[in-house]
Amino acid sequence: MSERGLLIVLSGPSGVGKGTVRKAIFDSEDHDFQYSISMTTRQMREGEVEGVDYYFRTREEFEAMIEAGEMLEYAEYVGNYYGTPLTYVNQTLDEGKDVFLEIEVQGAQQVKDKVPDGVFIFLTPPDLVELKCRIVGRGTDEESVIEERMRVAREEIEMMALYDYAVVNDEVPLAVKRIKRIIASEHFRVDRVIGKYIKMLKEM
Amino acid sequence: MSERGLLIVLSGPSGVGKGTVRKAIFDSEDHDFQYSISMTTRQMREGEVEGVDYYFRTREEFEAMIEAGEMLEYAEYVGNYYGTPLTYVNQTLDEGKDVFLEIEVQGAQQVKDKVPDGVFIFLTPPDLVELKCRIVGRGTDEESVIEERMRVAREEIEMMALYDYAVVNDEVPLAVKRIKRIIASEHFRVDRVIGKYIKMLKEM
Repeated sequence: MSERGLLIVLSGPSGVGKGTVRKAIFDSEDHDFQYSISMTTRQMREGEVEGVDYYFRTREEFEAMIEAGEMLEYAEYVGNYYGTPLTYVNQTLDEGKDVFLEIEVQGAQQVKDKVPDGVFIFLTPPDLVELKCRIVGRGTDEESVIEERMRVAREEIEMMALYDYAVVNDEVPLAVKRIKRIIASEHFRVDRVIGKYIKMLKEM
Repeated sequence: MSERGLLIVLSGPSGVGKGTVRKAIFDSEDHDFQYSISMTTRQMREGEVEGVDYYFRTREEFEAMIEAGEMLEYAEYVGNYYGTPLTYVNQTLDEGKDVFLEIEVQGAQQVKDKVPDGVFIFLTPPDLVELKCRIVGRGTDEESVIEERMRVAREEIEMMALYDYAVVNDEVPLAVKRIKRIIASEHFRVDRVIGKYIKMLKEM
């Protein structure tokens, strides 16, 4: 029985190490997901390959795709667009393969709106776990500094609330192991498998 | 930071092998759950030990506990009560340990009503996956036989809908591995961890 693949979204605050964890997952031997290549309007850099590192497009081409509803998510960053084309993701999911996106939090929010049954994993900075030490510091900081840290922590926790899972990135191999287990387990969720049983019964 | 433990409920249709899978989980080395011992009014059998195999109680004692709301779930089977006392489960969860229940489907329904944030795992017969072959058989069966098989399959699928996960018991070691992964992953669910972050922020 073929099922639709899972859309897996890895995101988290900037600087948390999303790219490193994603690379480690795809470098590991027993992974079984397709990586969705992003599209961008920024200049190709030395050594980069079209369709491997990014799909490189002009600003006009990118905006035409947004207009036509062909982007699953996108954001503008330092004057350039970055985003995920919808077609590849949908085709791959229809083939029953899991698609893995590693994107910024704004993009993850857009994907959540369009694909609520995706698996949303928030990578947490290790120091969020030691929140108190991090915010209060050595007790010698100005109140304004402490308040700013509180604000950032509050923002991170608010972001987290949109996700299904929160994985601490304390050690990359551990984070990789946790994420792989989460994805394996998600395949056994009743709301993902019960439809095929009901369909089989109806067809008889 | 201490968290409350998870209440894990393994159930499924009778004859699916719940007991075998549960034993294999508790015989495995790296499991980390507490097994909740059931209470019963049936006679103690040769070799059974009070507080190990069951808590053995009289019918009056058992009914007094039901009356006092001290049973998490119970059922009557062949003239005897079987059930799960609430106190041990709550104490163990409060200590931050996961509690594992292996119970019948009627009991699982009662637990779901009382502890909706438990992890409910439905063990699926391997032949539910080959539902069509199983129901239609070799194409030589009476219509009434086929209809009865359809009814049973429909019942099993209806039961499954109440659970979070459906794990096929095709091979016991595989089922054990899947269940352990599910439990590990459930610890990373945002709705289980976000509360402690919010609490920490509030306390500062």
